Amino acid sequence: MIEDKTPKRTALSELGEFGLIAHLTKDFKVVNPSTIKAIGDDAAIIDFKEKKAVISTDLLVEGVHFDLSYMPLKHLGYKAVMVNLSDIYAMNAAATQITVSIAVSNRFPLEALEELYAGIHLAAKIYNVDVVGGDTTSSNKGLLISVTSIGEVEEQNIAYRNGAKPNDLLVVTGDLGGAYMGLQVLEREKEVFKVNPNNQPDLDQYTYIIERQLKPEARKDIPPLLDQLGVKPTAMIDISDGLSSEIIHISKQSEVGVNLFEDKIPLDPQVIATCEEFKIDSTMVALSGGEDYELLFTIDQADYPKIKANPNLTVIGHMTEAKEGMHLITRANTKIPLKAQGWNAMRED
Amino acid sequence: MIEDKTPKRTALSELGEFGLIAHLTKDFKVVNPSTIKAIGDDAAIIDFKEKKAVISTDLLVEGVHFDLSYMPLKHLGYKAVMVNLSDIYAMNAAATQITVSIAVSNRFPLEALEELYAGIHLAAKIYNVDVVGGDTTSSNKGLLISVTSIGEVEEQNIAYRNGAKPNDLLVVTGDLGGAYMGLQVLEREKEVFKVNPNNQPDLDQYTYIIERQLKPEARKDIPPLLDQLGVKPTAMIDISDGLSSEIIHISKQSEVGVNLFEDKIPLDPQVIATCEEFKIDSTMVALSGGEDYELLFTIDQADYPKIKANPNLTVIGHMTEAKEGMHLITRANTKIPLKAQGWNAMRED
Repeated sequence: MIEDKTPKRTALSELGEFGLIAHLTKDFKVVNPSTIKAIGDDAAIIDFKEKKAVISTDLLVEGVHFDLSYMPLKHLGYKAVMVNLSDIYAMNAAATQITVSIAVSNRFPLEALEELYAGIHLAAKIYNVDVVGGDTTSSNKGLLISVTSIGEVEEQNIAYRNGAKPNDLLVVTGDLGGAYMGLQVLEREKEVFKVNPNNQPDLDQYTYIIERQLKPEARKDIPPLLDQLGVKPTAMIDISDGLSSEIIHISKQSEVGVNLFEDKIPLDPQVIATCEEFKIDSTMVALSGGEDYELLFTIDQADYPKIKANPNLTVIGHMTEAKEGMHLITRANTKIPLKAQGWNAMRED
Repeated sequence: MIEDKTPKRTALSELGEFGLIAHLTKDFKVVNPSTIKAIGDDAAIIDFKEKKAVISTDLLVEGVHFDLSYMPLKHLGYKAVMVNLSDIYAMNAAATQITVSIAVSNRFPLEALEELYAGIHLAAKIYNVDVVGGDTTSSNKGLLISVTSIGEVEEQNIAYRNGAKPNDLLVVTGDLGGAYMGLQVLEREKEVFKVNPNNQPDLDQYTYIIERQLKPEARKDIPPLLDQLGVKPTAMIDISDGLSSEIIHISKQSEVGVNLFEDKIPLDPQVIATCEEFKIDSTMVALSGGEDYELLFTIDQADYPKIKANPNLTVIGHMTEAKEGMHLITRANTKIPLKAQGWNAMRED
């Protein structure tokens, strides 16, 4: 048999709005007992019982938050879910449901949306969340994804941003700067490709950091881990905009100061090597890179023995009285003021 | 004193993302006791206690769902909230919170977003819902609004789409077709304006239908009214796409047939007059016009005495066995099959 190598392209208009939603969500299964009614009515119904409900929402826009020239649609669907779930875990909660709305231009064939939803489906399956609603609409230009994530938490476990106290330890999960350096590699390859479309890039040495950019994982494991260790964070936030900006959020909202130790910031060897190659300071990348989706939290010093042996958790500093200010203590033991710098600000230098 | 007539234009980039959200939401007050944490953390926290949570989400896209050439931004903000709350009321629930995300191009000055949020704020205030979250991001083109609405309901009061039984009465709130005819008037005026920008349109005779298009109201009053009357709808849906399409949703999901009586469909005199002027059939407009945001529901025949005197409610038909099919009984007493026709389909004829 001769294989038809032409990719199938089905026009979205062939299905209509109701047909489209039904088609894209037909394989989605409900797994959470709290989901009473998922897709198919005016609204979803959820039973939180004695727990509190947690709600967060985010918008991802083509050309602003992602570039389809190097972001496969399946990864994009996966990442859109991760970005949102991360906010639920940052409340020390469990994620249980999501709604997904997309605006899409007619230049996308059905098969492209199927890829996007395959990523959403995979994320929902791995992270045990039910897709309970959404909206699919046309857009005159580009692709836009809006996800609302819903979770549940016992009241006594909620970790807000404003509970840090002086002398609390500052702890971060995983390692930082990978997503930003992955983006640098992908943008370089895009430029190379523009000049020579036949160039086959060898990206083996960047596997980890590219995955951090294209397929980040939210820290679903951290709230149950902390519960198991008997640690209640005094404040918690997720790292979407860069370590520096998130530390400042916690410090300001908790009305405390902070000392962050440069030599404690966890960096993967691939981040360090790629920073050297790109001649970028790795501390700067960790502080301002963003998109790591790790969790940053503070704990009472008395809880230190409970976390110290855990390879997922690194103590990177401690909180102080507000009047002492917010500082980075460098490797050379100099004290410099911590500044909020998102990745946009960073690109200007 | 000489008044400065130049409208103030503040560039969005002057505020930055955090400054923008804080600025736009600074006057928003929390009124629902179920809102434990609103804007300002990674996620909102809501306490539904013994009630079930209701969640719905919608996306409005410039150039698809609204046209800024005749839709004032304040009205757009108001309408975006109405469109969503309508889905919560259609579950026979009370709306309690919303999240609002917007993607906006830099061509919008801050003052335009303030107008949009003034409409959102007004809607939230009148409808007693708390704005508990959102995301504000840039868009390379146009304006997009995503609203997620959250509500609560006692389990025994939930009205799904699939509970209608043969012989149930079919009931609609308010009147139909106004929003569609308002849109026809606005589109005609837009064309006139293109030819003669100095023309001052006299829209006095269209006040009601233009308001139905630009500033619709969701039927917040209906769930408590039904509760007070002691009526539990067997099925319920909101009318966003046109009466015909919504009746078909209820019939198919409930596995019943329906007879809809043309002479019972409630029409405002302004709708009838404007239909005559535009030479459009008013029944067609009610069936397929859409955007009325009224509620459509079915009740047991035994409940008829409880609702018959209410000016908000009109019985327009009754459900039948599925095998009898879905029909419109015309004024001439002929029986024609009911078809789903959104307003897009309608425009083609």
